[in-house]
Amino acid sequence: MEPFKVHVLGCGSAKPTTRHFASSQVVEIRGRLFLVDCAEATQVQLRRAKCRFSKLSHIFISHLHGDHCLGLVGLISSFGMTGRTAPMHVYAPAQFDDILHRMLDFFCGGLEFPVVFHPVDTNCHKVVFEDKCVSVKSLPLEHRVPCCGYLFEEKPTLPHIRRDMVDFHQIPVWQLNNIKNGEDGVAPDGRVVPQAELVSPPDPVRAYAYCSDTRYMPSLHKMIMGVNLLYHESTYDSTYQELANKYFHSTAAEAARVARDANAGHLLIGHYSARYDDESVLLSEAQAVFPYVTLAQEGLVVDVE
Amino acid sequence: MEPFKVHVLGCGSAKPTTRHFASSQVVEIRGRLFLVDCAEATQVQLRRAKCRFSKLSHIFISHLHGDHCLGLVGLISSFGMTGRTAPMHVYAPAQFDDILHRMLDFFCGGLEFPVVFHPVDTNCHKVVFEDKCVSVKSLPLEHRVPCCGYLFEEKPTLPHIRRDMVDFHQIPVWQLNNIKNGEDGVAPDGRVVPQAELVSPPDPVRAYAYCSDTRYMPSLHKMIMGVNLLYHESTYDSTYQELANKYFHSTAAEAARVARDANAGHLLIGHYSARYDDESVLLSEAQAVFPYVTLAQEGLVVDVE
Repeated sequence: MEPFKVHVLGCGSAKPTTRHFASSQVVEIRGRLFLVDCAEATQVQLRRAKCRFSKLSHIFISHLHGDHCLGLVGLISSFGMTGRTAPMHVYAPAQFDDILHRMLDFFCGGLEFPVVFHPVDTNCHKVVFEDKCVSVKSLPLEHRVPCCGYLFEEKPTLPHIRRDMVDFHQIPVWQLNNIKNGEDGVAPDGRVVPQAELVSPPDPVRAYAYCSDTRYMPSLHKMIMGVNLLYHESTYDSTYQELANKYFHSTAAEAARVARDANAGHLLIGHYSARYDDESVLLSEAQAVFPYVTLAQEGLVVDVE
Repeated sequence: MEPFKVHVLGCGSAKPTTRHFASSQVVEIRGRLFLVDCAEATQVQLRRAKCRFSKLSHIFISHLHGDHCLGLVGLISSFGMTGRTAPMHVYAPAQFDDILHRMLDFFCGGLEFPVVFHPVDTNCHKVVFEDKCVSVKSLPLEHRVPCCGYLFEEKPTLPHIRRDMVDFHQIPVWQLNNIKNGEDGVAPDGRVVPQAELVSPPDPVRAYAYCSDTRYMPSLHKMIMGVNLLYHESTYDSTYQELANKYFHSTAAEAARVARDANAGHLLIGHYSARYDDESVLLSEAQAVFPYVTLAQEGLVVDVE
């Protein structure tokens, strides 16, 4: 299977700590890189993750708090120093358009590539980007400002040719692409061999949901049923339930409830409050509800499978 | 002597690397903290340097390239989460005023302290800030955009009371403060004891000059004669002299020439081009001109003495 990975660049929350950068991830799908959120120092973290700048053309911003987007102008400025000419697409709540372009005009004069802004309606669950391999859908979340997560779904691939059956029936090579695309095979003696005999099923499609920042949403799982990997913010443990409610954040138990109800394959938690020197309390709390949990940390790479 | 230190928070240049953050330093003088430049992730680096946010009220920006100021809005936003009410003073080229306030309005709503902007004329060498302990002067530099360095000078302190002589003459304690301030002492028997007999000289005043970014300026040393510590950018070694000229940066040899001509006590170099995996070539080149050189690196603390 081709790679589908999540690189954690930063998983802290807004208050700075010595242990975490603020939110940013790279979603790598079949050689494409998608950036999700872009806190300060994302450009440094991208370097550390050995992600090639040139493969990144789409940036998705969940909401307009500084700890999710204040690295964007610096990143784009640095892209301008790499000789880039390919457009950079930025998907974010519509309110970002004006200030983003003012900042780009001020700090990024002379860019040789366009920055294309795509306003995202954070109230809608719908496709905001797609190409032949992947679609990205918005996931309405409930935070103090307009906010959405993003659901990355692979598109179905073609079935695999069964080398043994193709050899057995002596099917000519020139037919293989047509067979992958649904046609039957024809043997040299004119016999028609049904496509189903010549192929094995395609790889299962995989999906990743990024959900930060949000209060607990009892119905969120319905939009992300069966995702292989769910990132859900876990700012607090349950002893701070009141703070979670007040600031529209989630506890680790609530994140795990969403993963359980969505029948997710695995849960990745992050967006840790600065109060934790050690997030194992969050891990334990989540695992009591849903067993397959990993704590995000900078440099972590998680396979979506 | 009371502390006078420079904390290096970041010493890379604009292109991101895995080894350096972009420019930012804290100048610590007698318990006050002054921030000089504020690249992305300065707030994280401040935490790592264990600098107390509450002691920082004055931020000096050399110029408006992103690698010197794109951490400011995030830093101010985080100050807003600490319960701060004391004003934050920002000194920067005048062109920053409009975009800074637009960014603050967008990203830092509800701040409970004022951000006071002080435009700095980068063509003038003059005092831009002073209090009873320190003065900060602008240092006109020559870069691709308006740019100035900053010269931090201690103000003279009072002389030290000579405990031995005070005891010998039995000078009453209540006179000591007056004696420090220039008055003669009067012994219990009415004898006048000249002030000069009762005090030893005050600590020498110390000075630190921050010079980034600039091309080599043959006359720069005249503004910073005798500084104890000079930070001067050294983006390149001399094999890249043409790039230095083109982009208005300096080589290590040029930085060392300024230090030598200024009769500086020590030279700190930084703002390294991303092409260096190891800056020892810059150190060697500088030391061939001026012997007392240190390579800046994140976390380094240099005493000004």
